[in-house]
Amino acid sequence: MIVVLKPEAAEKDIEFVSEKIRKMGLKPHVSKGEERTIIGAIGDEALIKEDQLRALRIVEKVMPILKPYKLVSREFKPRDTLLNIGGVEIGGKKLVIIAGPCSVESREQIILTAKEVKKAGASMLRGGAFKPRTSPYTFQGLGEEGLKLLQEAKKETGLPIVTEVMDTGDVSLIAKYADVLQIGARNMQNFQLLKAVGKVKKPVLLKRGMSATLKELLMSAEYIMSEGNHEVILCERGIRTFVEYSRNTLDLNIVPEIKKHTHLPILVDPSHGTGKYDLVSPMSKAAVACGADGLIIEVHNNPEEAISDGDQSLTPKNFAQLMKELKPVAEAVGRKL
Amino acid sequence: MIVVLKPEAAEKDIEFVSEKIRKMGLKPHVSKGEERTIIGAIGDEALIKEDQLRALRIVEKVMPILKPYKLVSREFKPRDTLLNIGGVEIGGKKLVIIAGPCSVESREQIILTAKEVKKAGASMLRGGAFKPRTSPYTFQGLGEEGLKLLQEAKKETGLPIVTEVMDTGDVSLIAKYADVLQIGARNMQNFQLLKAVGKVKKPVLLKRGMSATLKELLMSAEYIMSEGNHEVILCERGIRTFVEYSRNTLDLNIVPEIKKHTHLPILVDPSHGTGKYDLVSPMSKAAVACGADGLIIEVHNNPEEAISDGDQSLTPKNFAQLMKELKPVAEAVGRKL
Amino acid sequence: MIVVLKPEAAEKDIEFVSEKIRKMGLKPHVSKGEERTIIGAIGDEALIKEDQLRALRIVEKVMPILKPYKLVSREFKPRDTLLNIGGVEIGGKKLVIIAGPCSVESREQIILTAKEVKKAGASMLRGGAFKPRTSPYTFQGLGEEGLKLLQEAKKETGLPIVTEVMDTGDVSLIAKYADVLQIGARNMQNFQLLKAVGKVKKPVLLKRGMSATLKELLMSAEYIMSEGNHEVILCERGIRTFVEYSRNTLDLNIVPEIKKHTHLPILVDPSHGTGKYDLVSPMSKAAVACGADGLIIEVHNNPEEAISDGDQSLTPKNFAQLMKELKPVAEAVGRKL
Amino acid sequence: MIVVLKPEAAEKDIEFVSEKIRKMGLKPHVSKGEERTIIGAIGDEALIKEDQLRALRIVEKVMPILKPYKLVSREFKPRDTLLNIGGVEIGGKKLVIIAGPCSVESREQIILTAKEVKKAGASMLRGGAFKPRTSPYTFQGLGEEGLKLLQEAKKETGLPIVTEVMDTGDVSLIAKYADVLQIGARNMQNFQLLKAVGKVKKPVLLKRGMSATLKELLMSAEYIMSEGNHEVILCERGIRTFVEYSRNTLDLNIVPEIKKHTHLPILVDPSHGTGKYDLVSPMSKAAVACGADGLIIEVHNNPEEAISDGDQSLTPKNFAQLMKELKPVAEAVGRKL
Repeated sequence: MIVVLKPEAAEKDIEFVSEKIRKMGLKPHVSKGEERTIIGAIGDEALIKEDQLRALRIVEKVMPILKPYKLVSREFKPRDTLLNIGGVEIGGKKLVIIAGPCSVESREQIILTAKEVKKAGASMLRGGAFKPRTSPYTFQGLGEEGLKLLQEAKKETGLPIVTEVMDTGDVSLIAKYADVLQIGARNMQNFQLLKAVGKVKKPVLLKRGMSATLKELLMSAEYIMSEGNHEVILCERGIRTFVEYSRNTLDLNIVPEIKKHTHLPILVDPSHGTGKYDLVSPMSKAAVACGADGLIIEVHNNPEEAISDGDQSLTPKNFAQLMKELKPVAEAVGRKL
Repeated sequence: MIVVLKPEAAEKDIEFVSEKIRKMGLKPHVSKGEERTIIGAIGDEALIKEDQLRALRIVEKVMPILKPYKLVSREFKPRDTLLNIGGVEIGGKKLVIIAGPCSVESREQIILTAKEVKKAGASMLRGGAFKPRTSPYTFQGLGEEGLKLLQEAKKETGLPIVTEVMDTGDVSLIAKYADVLQIGARNMQNFQLLKAVGKVKKPVLLKRGMSATLKELLMSAEYIMSEGNHEVILCERGIRTFVEYSRNTLDLNIVPEIKKHTHLPILVDPSHGTGKYDLVSPMSKAAVACGADGLIIEVHNNPEEAISDGDQSLTPKNFAQLMKELKPVAEAVGRKL
Repeated sequence: MIVVLKPEAAEKDIEFVSEKIRKMGLKPHVSKGEERTIIGAIGDEALIKEDQLRALRIVEKVMPILKPYKLVSREFKPRDTLLNIGGVEIGGKKLVIIAGPCSVESREQIILTAKEVKKAGASMLRGGAFKPRTSPYTFQGLGEEGLKLLQEAKKETGLPIVTEVMDTGDVSLIAKYADVLQIGARNMQNFQLLKAVGKVKKPVLLKRGMSATLKELLMSAEYIMSEGNHEVILCERGIRTFVEYSRNTLDLNIVPEIKKHTHLPILVDPSHGTGKYDLVSPMSKAAVACGADGLIIEVHNNPEEAISDGDQSLTPKNFAQLMKELKPVAEAVGRKL
Repeated sequence: MIVVLKPEAAEKDIEFVSEKIRKMGLKPHVSKGEERTIIGAIGDEALIKEDQLRALRIVEKVMPILKPYKLVSREFKPRDTLLNIGGVEIGGKKLVIIAGPCSVESREQIILTAKEVKKAGASMLRGGAFKPRTSPYTFQGLGEEGLKLLQEAKKETGLPIVTEVMDTGDVSLIAKYADVLQIGARNMQNFQLLKAVGKVKKPVLLKRGMSATLKELLMSAEYIMSEGNHEVILCERGIRTFVEYSRNTLDLNIVPEIKKHTHLPILVDPSHGTGKYDLVSPMSKAAVACGADGLIIEVHNNPEEAISDGDQSLTPKNFAQLMKELKPVAEAVGRKL
């Protein structure tokens, strides 16, 4: 931690700040420049109460040197994490493609869609039973009934299930049915929920919040891991910007960047990330080209009748076409579909 | 709802979309321009499945005419909502000033601070017992112990208590101690939590999420009201932008704008909104000048030892000075402190 | 254009607005819903003075139906524009790769770099002689001397030259030396400069501004084309967002989206778009995978001594490696390098 | 400047970076922590080529300590700059109110508006003769004819004139007529134009760009001052964010913040900053309450017929009302109207 003092700092101020650092269990290291004095705090940065230093009126700024996360970091575990979920590997050479509808709407819809996406090459099935909706007056999901339909679809196709958990009270129920628990973007900093899924033995798919920085995403993963659950999969799904032509701005730059900082796998969700069905295919290819470990794609057997997100869903036919076109892109960057 | 068709739309497409609208229980109204055909959907807009229309491949765009919220809207209830919380009015001529520390840290800290802010003119006490923290390794709040200390502070000073609830499982516990339940920015779209606080008989202070639009903030308030709890107080606390000199960008523009759309009162939190103690005073005055119904301000008896957010906390002395300076500003815009 | 009236609009208001529309030379088309009256303005939307309608106190909102641009639009010219610049095609099956240093610094530097990028497969050379720099105290470019060095590099390698023009007063000078005039992001809405380059017979590379919408980018291209110069190449180079880990947020989503709206080619600049040399390679592949017509990449023979932007420049060796890795990606999406 | 090395840095890397710093004319100061080595560069930070340090592959990050601007800084000139423009003071106790239409449209319009705003208490007149417009097909201003009409309005009312200059080629023409040269938001980083207005003897009103940081705004002011023109007035006019209910997000936080860094006066433009006439009054009061040195407000004698920006213009009557309401707010914060 580097503490920069204001230009007017006198000897007694320097000593005061140094003493403060010493009391935190670190060693102050004073360096007087021509215009500013800076004090380094040497030792375990976790001991530092950064806010307390920043609150000192003689301090101009505080600049951390080390990263605030541990278990998620590549320094802690240099090799990529490789998960195996019901026989499906995530984080290896083979890409994982998770497909399915936004919401589970009916037996026919989910089973038909599951069969179609399996045929086209998907390796896991997504579908929401508990749905976060902006309006209290719109369809909120089928609840446990939806979970049971997902289970049926799994029986029919063998595809492991990914579904969202929105509340600590639902974690154990959903964990009975799901193979992967999804934390949605709106709950990325619902810390109680992160702790709760950290305590179950199920992989967690953690979606980046709409205004989350890379550091915040990793800190949320750290919450889950610090409770003992090390099976975390990250997911980029678009950030909120001024841009008007896509529902969100899919930020693919995070894919190669985050791999420098963490050993966890990262997927991309181009359906929510763009909000437009005709951008899903090109952005899926781009995601694979820049190193994503897989994709999560909305597919609906009849998007024009979908209860939610029809405008960003592919038809099974479009999805099959996408899978065909993705194959050479994956191979071009040394991956497999 | 206005549906704009793509230029290539033929008669049969127009009929197809019109039929779709009829099936939703509305009346289509076709208007052919020189370059585009547009179809109005007349009737109860709540019946429209907007996503389904948007998903039609012949549709270029869908433009809603009406607002998606009801109970929160000024059209539904033209007069300002006026709350009375333990004798403290919110939404009237007198401004409400809520002050106190970020976290409850100890009996001495909370009681001393409570007395100081009361003396300076605050009318309610804030303090966190359950704290949302970015890192799992930092202080997470005293929990129920903190709630008890808040209760003691209330006994000593008479100030009603505002404290945050982060999880559906904690709602009933916190409702026993608190006079106002706060929903933090990170939980603004934790819809299960919104429903849960909608079911208790306690006023709710709903903070705007870091990337929430005005419409999303009102929809979250609508969630609470749709469960039967009509005592909702909105709060602007800064949005996330590219700006580098404040922790968030306090967006005061929402204050006069939201009053056109809703009857609910709106407060401003300049402490979180800027993240810098020396911006709290000028931005407090600005908030009052543009019509805020009150302020929520972090005050700590010793910011340089605060466990969290010391860098944005005022000392009791600074706070007393701010109260003195606020008075003429409030009067200049026809309000009272 | 759709004009939505406020709920309180009476017959006389409807007539007033209708008359206003008639005076603009369009036909009003009134449609009374249950809660709002809306008026369509039918005819040539270019005649509408949108601001005047929006300024009417009885108007709630004004929603345009048609697009404000013409010459750039795909409706005006459905087929892709294909440019030929000194034998190099832009907008066709073959990707164009423009490479070179941020600034021209010396004869040795530019000629060495030009030879290296040519050897690796680049088809045009970039280099700044007039440099936009945030600080007046940093290197501002070699000026005409730099242009002469670029000309020498062209003679040595045959690579056409792309260089930036920053001021109307420099257009004719730079047009003497350059094969493509670049308009930088900071000047995307320098309308006098757009008009000036619209009057010369040289292709223009127009970079997207840091906070430009798709519509604004196209309107700036329209400025150039409306002066008679139809050889415009668009370029995505990153937008400004809250994101902290890249200098800008490279927004690849615009690539497939803009192709729906315009016939003009679009390149991607991953060097400025990310600001980090180790993100250039993965994001270059992503750009090609989602449909970019080419790339513009900073290459410096010795980045650690570069006067500007060394931190985002590739070495010639890195660049050659990138070109090798790009080839299969280009082929995977049906393009050639 | 603090240079943080990557964890794998060896002795020879430390020496290599230190030598690099020495060659720049500064003294390296090595400090080895438990997990990172950091090197301070002591001396004149202006000598440092930050990009070159950042480009070193062994460097993790580079953190500047000092500010990149000089002439604009409060350290350079601790006392507030006070300008006198034709008898009107800017930067003193009395607020400056600049009012007038977006564009000069006709003799009648500008003279009528000038008289009205003067009567209501404005001290300067604004009006555009050269207009930056997003579309090449909309009204581009009356040009020199507009300047002459502004001059007439000045003769009639005595109000000094503020008008925009968009191109280096127009600077001398406009300087003949105007009392203050305005640099618009879109040209804030048109560095050639900044240098050009830095060479004339006229005060410059520099508007913040839509995505400009505080540092970038000050660097642009530094450009003007570094050419010898020290009469610079800053102006906040809204930034681009995700927010949907105002054309821009007026960022008042910059007002108290920038006063810590610079001695230059800062105005606020609530008309462009919000884009809505009914937000102008509350946000004007907020701007004054948080310390702005004045306002620049669009007033049109007939907004519903204005050629541009009618939707954000006040009528003369609204403006007179605003001036009346502003007075007590100004006095409440120790200023005068």
